[in-house]
Order: sequence, then structure tokens, then C-alpha cells
Amino acid sequence: MARTCAVGVDFGTESGRAVLVDVSTGAELATAVYPYANGVIDERLPAPDDDVRLEPDWALQDPEDYVRTFQVTVPSVLEQAAVDPADVIGIGVDFTACTMLPTTADGTPVCTLPEYRRRPHAWVKLWKHHAAQPEADRINELARERGEPWLPRYGGKISSEWFYAKALQILDEDPELYATADRLIEAADWVVWRLTGVETRNSCTAGYKAIWSKGEGFPSAEYFAGLDPRFSSVVDDKMSREISPIGARAGGLTAEAAAWTGLRPGTAVAVANVDAHVSVPAATVTGPGRMVAVMGTSICHLALGADSAVVEGMCGVVEDGVIPGLFGFEAGQSGVGDIFAWFVDNAVPPEYHARAAAEGVDVHTILEREAAALRPGESGLLALDWWNGNRSILVDVDLTGLLVGATLSTKAPEIYRALIEATAVGTRMIVEAFEDAGVRVEEVVACGGLPDRNRLLMQIYADVTGREFAVAASGQTPALGSAMFGAVAAGAAAGGYDDIVDAATRMARLRDERYRPDPATREAYDELYREYVALHDHFGRGASDVMKALKAIRARARSEVAPA
Amino acid sequence: MARTCAVGVDFGTESGRAVLVDVSTGAELATAVYPYANGVIDERLPAPDDDVRLEPDWALQDPEDYVRTFQVTVPSVLEQAAVDPADVIGIGVDFTACTMLPTTADGTPVCTLPEYRRRPHAWVKLWKHHAAQPEADRINELARERGEPWLPRYGGKISSEWFYAKALQILDEDPELYATADRLIEAADWVVWRLTGVETRNSCTAGYKAIWSKGEGFPSAEYFAGLDPRFSSVVDDKMSREISPIGARAGGLTAEAAAWTGLRPGTAVAVANVDAHVSVPAATVTGPGRMVAVMGTSICHLALGADSAVVEGMCGVVEDGVIPGLFGFEAGQSGVGDIFAWFVDNAVPPEYHARAAAEGVDVHTILEREAAALRPGESGLLALDWWNGNRSILVDVDLTGLLVGATLSTKAPEIYRALIEATAVGTRMIVEAFEDAGVRVEEVVACGGLPDRNRLLMQIYADVTGREFAVAASGQTPALGSAMFGAVAAGAAAGGYDDIVDAATRMARLRDERYRPDPATREAYDELYREYVALHDHFGRGASDVMKALKAIRARARSEVAPA
Repeated sequence: MARTCAVGVDFGTESGRAVLVDVSTGAELATAVYPYANGVIDERLPAPDDDVRLEPDWALQDPEDYVRTFQVTVPSVLEQAAVDPADVIGIGVDFTACTMLPTTADGTPVCTLPEYRRRPHAWVKLWKHHAAQPEADRINELARERGEPWLPRYGGKISSEWFYAKALQILDEDPELYATADRLIEAADWVVWRLTGVETRNSCTAGYKAIWSKGEGFPSAEYFAGLDPRFSSVVDDKMSREISPIGARAGGLTAEAAAWTGLRPGTAVAVANVDAHVSVPAATVTGPGRMVAVMGTSICHLALGADSAVVEGMCGVVEDGVIPGLFGFEAGQSGVGDIFAWFVDNAVPPEYHARAAAEGVDVHTILEREAAALRPGESGLLALDWWNGNRSILVDVDLTGLLVGATLSTKAPEIYRALIEATAVGTRMIVEAFEDAGVRVEEVVACGGLPDRNRLLMQIYADVTGREFAVAASGQTPALGSAMFGAVAAGAAAGGYDDIVDAATRMARLRDERYRPDPATREAYDELYREYVALHDHFGRGASDVMKALKAIRARARSEVAPA
Repeated sequence: MARTCAVGVDFGTESGRAVLVDVSTGAELATAVYPYANGVIDERLPAPDDDVRLEPDWALQDPEDYVRTFQVTVPSVLEQAAVDPADVIGIGVDFTACTMLPTTADGTPVCTLPEYRRRPHAWVKLWKHHAAQPEADRINELARERGEPWLPRYGGKISSEWFYAKALQILDEDPELYATADRLIEAADWVVWRLTGVETRNSCTAGYKAIWSKGEGFPSAEYFAGLDPRFSSVVDDKMSREISPIGARAGGLTAEAAAWTGLRPGTAVAVANVDAHVSVPAATVTGPGRMVAVMGTSICHLALGADSAVVEGMCGVVEDGVIPGLFGFEAGQSGVGDIFAWFVDNAVPPEYHARAAAEGVDVHTILEREAAALRPGESGLLALDWWNGNRSILVDVDLTGLLVGATLSTKAPEIYRALIEATAVGTRMIVEAFEDAGVRVEEVVACGGLPDRNRLLMQIYADVTGREFAVAASGQTPALGSAMFGAVAAGAAAGGYDDIVDAATRMARLRDERYRPDPATREAYDELYREYVALHDHFGRGASDVMKALKAIRARARSEVAPA
């Protein structure tokens, strides 16, 4: 008997990935990855326009790489698994966000028009395009001045990575191009448009990145006009007020997209989603009480609630943003795996590298082994894990890393453990902020790259937070989640599911292993937590502004260096 | 014409060193070093008693190593320089301190008596013997309770390294041996006793290590009785109230000591001195206004004043303690070169080690080169240089190192520079504490190992403190200073000098190079200083006790580890 399948396509920062999934079991039958030909465009535009150089902090992409992802990866997974396209009932996509682009009214990217190809603002602005900070500053300042009611839903601060900062930068710096663009759209929605011929706007990116809510819609025209009179009708001019909930069907595959993918025309296409958020049901979480932690270079924390709530320093809360019918809460730590990688690259002496090489393992493995032999607090060290700023709960990119407790006998594995402990305490602060706001977190399901490799880290997280940590079975939860939404777009009548809760029950699984808090560590970690909170509040809540002062001194020192 | 010479012998931690010096010019004619056969005894007593194990924190020495130093090194310098012993007019010695031992009434070390040889308390307690902390705690507690008038002269705290803590530990732990010992004496004075047959007690160790002052003598019997009734007459029982000023003649060489050294019987022997303090005239400083910084693994700061003063957190102020007729002020930083060495050994990644190896230089050289290319504050980092606690001005061994400002782009040379800057700021705090107390510091003369190797460090110290730094010409200022005091012990009539000021004028020199504060760095370093002071006060003056809490957590974690 033929399997009924769905395809999930996950658009990452460097590549796109398709996974073919058995709808009845969630078994991942085949995977294919397409590394974007133009990758992250952050120094100069692609040839033949590579004489056009970009300013610092820019990060663009080429929308044709997204089309190529479909063309390369979907046929590949079908072929690998020898699945008949007729047995593929749906396709879902997820994307980095906010990753957005200007298009014409029919969805043609402005950067593909010859007359605009050499204009940087015509290209896709990737999530980590950080050049719109001045616009974000204006957005926040005006929102605070006006007491905008939506500001608390975003932890009191809008990121320069989000939609309006990027849109406003286009208006500021290339008003003619802004006028030319009929649409400004999330790449997530744009690829669904390309698949279906239908423009939809998903509730996840609209809510988390474009300040939309189901009850209140978008910010007012008065607010937008305060940013720039030409911006007052940005929603009606460039966007849409029609928001499609996560879990809905966007449309059916066009003949063109069927030809790209090898799937049949009319195959159900789900409304688009965001990579972290789509992981939630793929990690078996479809209701309140369990948090999903997407753990990699950074951590994204997602939890669900029946009611809205104001959680200190969260990234956002969106009704229907993650699971239809529930409020999805998002928080985050801006540096986790990145900090461990920094440490290994920049602060570990040769002996550990030599031992790793001798054993044929990586340096993390050597450090983890020695760090695991230490008891909680035995290093005598404590860190503030702010090497990349603090996202939640302080929402402050200008905070920096701190290490205290060093002595002449401090060794690298002790610092390594202190850094792990610090990121775990950062997660505990977020968990407690959720609980304080009435959003229950009884256990955590981890996914992403870190849980795979790092048993010590997982145990420390369980011990520090006092929560049991489970781990999602899939190593590619975003793509699995997208395939699940593809099956929901197809519906039960077509062999899929009528809602994502049913899909998760059948298609999502956890690993057997669980990390349970060790009660013997409780006292020491409670003490470390109290000390961390004291440092956190001293340096993060204004009592000491040394971190900002040092950044200012540094910036001045750099500006004094003789210009080229 | 024959040169008139003097010999200086410097007793260090691992070895003793003799230098033969031309009295008229200060030229160093020959040097010889004797590495102590029994070195630092910190695990077990020397053979054949090496089944006797020592507790943690003990550090002993063998007094016979000191005698062997005379026997080996003095004949060697005479032979190397082909100097007639008749032309050597005097000998001076300096020592680590407080390094003390129990002896019989005739000066025989108790550890050389067969019946006491296996008793650890019979041996020399080296300066870094740290096992007398409980005794130091009692000494301080009682002094504070009683409001002892001498306490402010020592920054409010007596170190466990000093004389009474060590003496009291003998009484506590081996009262029979304490009773047997007729004398408890600084090794500095003991070696002079061995040279001359005359027991003297020098004003430098008496003042800085045994709470003596010219005006007030020793602490009262009531105070000592409060520590232990058997300790009430420790001064009269085990010490002497007759204190010999620095610069005086202790006696003439005995026939026995003449045979050891190859010098003539009757050769003038100076009253003993301490290694750091004897460096002051050897660095050309004999009056107020100029500080000497003995810069090595740690820094010892010495300054002179016509009047006494209470300098916050100083190690001590002693009349006649450094230069006769003046008050000598001592302060210190407990970790400097040690911190840089820790960093290179424990926190510098392989690429810098590889480059050092490729160039045939040490890692410091590579780091210094890159750090020198940075402007003040450009690293964005700030450290509290407390890896080995804080001696001055907080007098707190339980403080620990802190680094703030780290980001994912922080590199090792930036941390290296931040550590140098932190130690320089630590020196500035000491300089300002002296100035605040009315002890002028108009320029600094550096000596010791660090100024030799590290031009960037010297320039940063000048810039941060706003003081010009000169460097003593001699690379072995303690031995030179001892030779100068030997020449003073001989006196002008014998071809020497009548006082140390005259000797310094003729025998001590500075290098030509000077490090002048660069006014362009002033603003940035003033800002960094303010930020450092804020951190210093927050973590060092009680607002945050995180450093102590972490030490307590660490100690508890270690104690929970299964015992052997």
C-alpha cells in the first residue's frame, strides 16, 4: 500500500531543506538540502553587479535562491524515497523572519527587474540585516511617547530586525524604490505566493514581526504617520489586512510550481510559518504547560496559553501565532551555542586542542568531559551570558558578557561549565518570567542542534531550571513541522488531518531519554541563581551602566583611528 | 689601582644571589646564584624525614640552604671578578619576609637538633606559608575589638604571612616546641647573626612584619595575652626590644663566616633588610615624592615621607623602615605578572602559541604586539585585577578576578590589554590613596622583572597613572641595595659611605629611557578609571558580596566531594 506523504520545506539562513514525511507516522523518508547560490549577501551584490558594495550591517538574499530550493530539493526527496507524487497530499513551508522583500503587484521581486537590480534596497532583507537600527529607534521612541497599546506585547521594544524598521529604511534611503514596490512581503509569504499564485499573509510573521494582533489589527495610521507622513498608509499601500491563520490552506500548487517540484498541480499548500514557531507542534507541544526551547547558536523559547498575558521582556505574544486558538508566547536568549563556540575559538589553550586532535573528537567534547566532573558551583565562577546582548528579559543589545570569580588556578573547563550554567540560568529567568505572568511552564521540550550533542548541557539546564527536559525526536523539527502543516492544509478527507493537534499526535515524537532535575544540585543552583539575579539586575537594570560606557568608549576609540 | 667593593646577598624564594659591586660607581662586577637544595618545602620534609607530610598551605625552608648560599656565591663572585678580599669593605643582606624560624639561645635552628628534625614547626616558615590564617583571624579580631592603635598603620588588617600569626601557629600546634625555642627570629636577622655572631633585629621586618614602631614599640602584653595567656610575653621571651635601624652596622664577619665567604674576618656586616625595601635606594629613591614599584609576579609600592600618615589599605608604615630618618610606606598588588602568566597558560588559543613558536619568541611578545595596536578602551573590556585577591587598598584575599565587556568578537590580545590596563588602574588607585593621605607621588621608579620585558605595559602604567615612569638601571636591585648598605656599614672612613643617601648618589642609577604619560590617552583612561572605581567599590566594599558567596559555594562543593 502506498504511503500518504507530505513535504516540508525549511528556508534557513544559508540553505533550504526539504523533508518528505509519512503522514500517518511522521517518519522522515528523505531529506535534501540546497545551499543558496548567493548565500548571505553582505559585502557586494551578486555578479554581474558585484561592483555595488553594501554598507556595514547589511544582509541580503536573492529570492531566486528560494525558487531554486523548490526546484532542487523537492524532486530529490521524491526520487530518493521513490514516492509517487500522487501520494503527496500537501506541502508546507517555514522561513527565517523577518526576512522581507519588495515586489510588484503580481509578486515579481523588484530586484529581478533590470532597472532596479543594482539598487540594494530592491533585494531581500534577511532577518539579520541590522542596518535599520536608526529606524527601529524612531519606531520605539514614538511608540513610547504615544503609549502605544501594543508595545507591552513586545517586551517594550521593537527590534531592528522586524518588518517596519526594514520597510522604513527603504523609504528613508530609496523612496523611489519604496514608491515603486506595490508590495512589501515576508519571504515566507512570498514563496507561498509563488507556489499557489495567491497572496496570503500568515498570522505568525504578521503577529511577531509586523505588530498585528487578531483583536486589534495593525498600529494606527496616526502612529505610522508620526514616523513619516509617507508611511501612514503602509499597511494598505504595501501589505494586507487579511491575515491567514496558521494551519489554514493557502491554495493549491500552480502548474508552474508543480513543474518545479514534481508534485501534482493543485496539491494543498499551507499558509507559511516561521522556523522556530513551526517547531512547536513538531516537538509534540500543542497546548499550555510545556515550553519548547529551540536550542542552537541562540535559544528561542515558545509557550502557549489560553489567554494573553504580559511577560516581562518577551519577544512577542500572538493569538493564533503558533497554534490556532491559542496565544503563542515567544522569548529568547541571543547568545548560547555562539558563546561556547566563541570560547573554544578564542579562550581555550593549546593542550585541550591537542587532546581533542589526539582523540579525534572536537574541543567541546574534551571540555565537556572535564566540566562534567565538576559539581555545581565548584568552579567558583559565575557569568552573565550577554556576549551577544540580552534578548529576554532585558531586551538590550548593548549589554555585554561578564565573568566573575577567576583566580590564578582557574582552568578552561571551569569557565566552559560556568558559561553553560550562565545560559541555563538565563533560561531559568525566562521560565520564571513566564510563570510570574501566569503562563505555566511545567516541562521543556528541546529541539535544535545543541540537545543532540551536549548531554552535560541538557542535564545542567534541567537542574538549573528545576524542569524536566525532553528532546524532540526529529533532528529537523522545522521541516517536519512544515510537513505537518502541509498535511493539515490537505485535510483529513484527503488523508491528512483536520487540525495541527491531530497531526502532532500522529506525526511528532520525543526521544526516550529525558533529563530530570537532580535534587542534590538544587541548593547550589538556587544560590547561583540568586547571585546571577543580583548581577543581572545590577548591570542590566540601570544601577551600573558600565557595559554601555565601555561600548561608548570603544566606539570613540575606533572612530579616532585614522580613516583609510 | 684596586677597586673598593661591597657584596650584597639577596635571599629569594627559590635561590640566593650574591653580587659584587664597585663602591665608587655601583658597577656590578660579578653575580652568582645558588638554587636552594631543598627549595620550597611544601609537601614533605627533606630526606631522610620525607615520610613526614605537610598540611595544605604550608611552605617551609631549610636554614642550611642560607648558609650554603654564602658558601657558594660569595667565593664565586670574588673569583669571577678577581677581587682581593681585602678590597671588600662590607656585606649586606636582604631577604623575603616574613620568613622566620625558631632557634636556641645561641642561634642554632631548632630544626637542626636531631630530636626536633621531624617536627614541621621546627623549620623555617617561608613568607608564603599560608597555614596560619586562623591565627591571623584571631589577631585581627582582637585588635579590632580592642581598638588597637597600631591597626591603622597596617591598613586595618594583619596578614597571615606576618610574624605573630606564624609564631602563634607554633604555640597553637606545637606548644612544646614553642617552649623549647629560645628565639623566634626573621631569617634576615638570623643570617646576619650567623655572619657576625651578634643577634640583631632590623627595623624593617620589625616594623612591617612584627608591628613594631619607633615611637610605640610592640603591641602590649595585654593584647598578646588576649590572644593566648602563654603568648603575653612573646616579645621578651622570644624576640628583642632592641631594634637596629636600617643602615647601621650589625657587626664584623666572624672567622667562621670569613671562611665560608672568602672575605676577611671583621668585614663590616649591615643590619638586615627586606628585598623590596632595600630596592628603594638602589632605584635612586632616598626621599619623598618618588614611589618605587617593584614589579614582578606582584607589585610592591614603596614611598617615603617626612611624617607619618594613614594611607587607606597600605601594608604598613614604618619609621626608619626603608631609609633612616624617614617614614617608609608600603602598599601592594597581589597579582600582576602572575595574572598575565595565568592568561597565557590558560586562556590563549593555539594560533598565538603557534605564531610565537614560528617567530621564536614567547606568547607575551605576540600578544603585546597586537595589544599595542589598540587604543585605550578600544577593547571594550574592563577587568578587576583580583585573580590573587586585593592587597591594597582593600586588603581582602577573598576577592576574585572579574572581566566585563566581552562580545562574540572579543580576541585574546584585547583581553591581554584589558588585564594590563586593570593592573595599571590598580596602581593608580594606590597612587591616589597615597596622595589623598598627603604622601606625594610625583613620579615612579620601576624595578623588578616586568619593566625589563614589557614596554607596552610600562607605557600603559605611565598613561593610566598620569605619572612619569623611570626604570632602575640594575636588573638586580635587591642585591645592589644590600651591597650599598654593606658600603654604609663600612662607613666613609673605610672607603664606603656614611649614609645610604650618599651611597645612592654614587652607586644607584636609572636607565636613560623614561615612559611619559601621553596626554592623548588621558580622557579615555580617566573614564576607564571611573568605571573601574565603580566596579571596585561595588564588589570590594560590600555592596555586592558575590565573590565571597562564590568562594563559599565552591568550598562547600569541594567538601562534598567524596573524601579519599
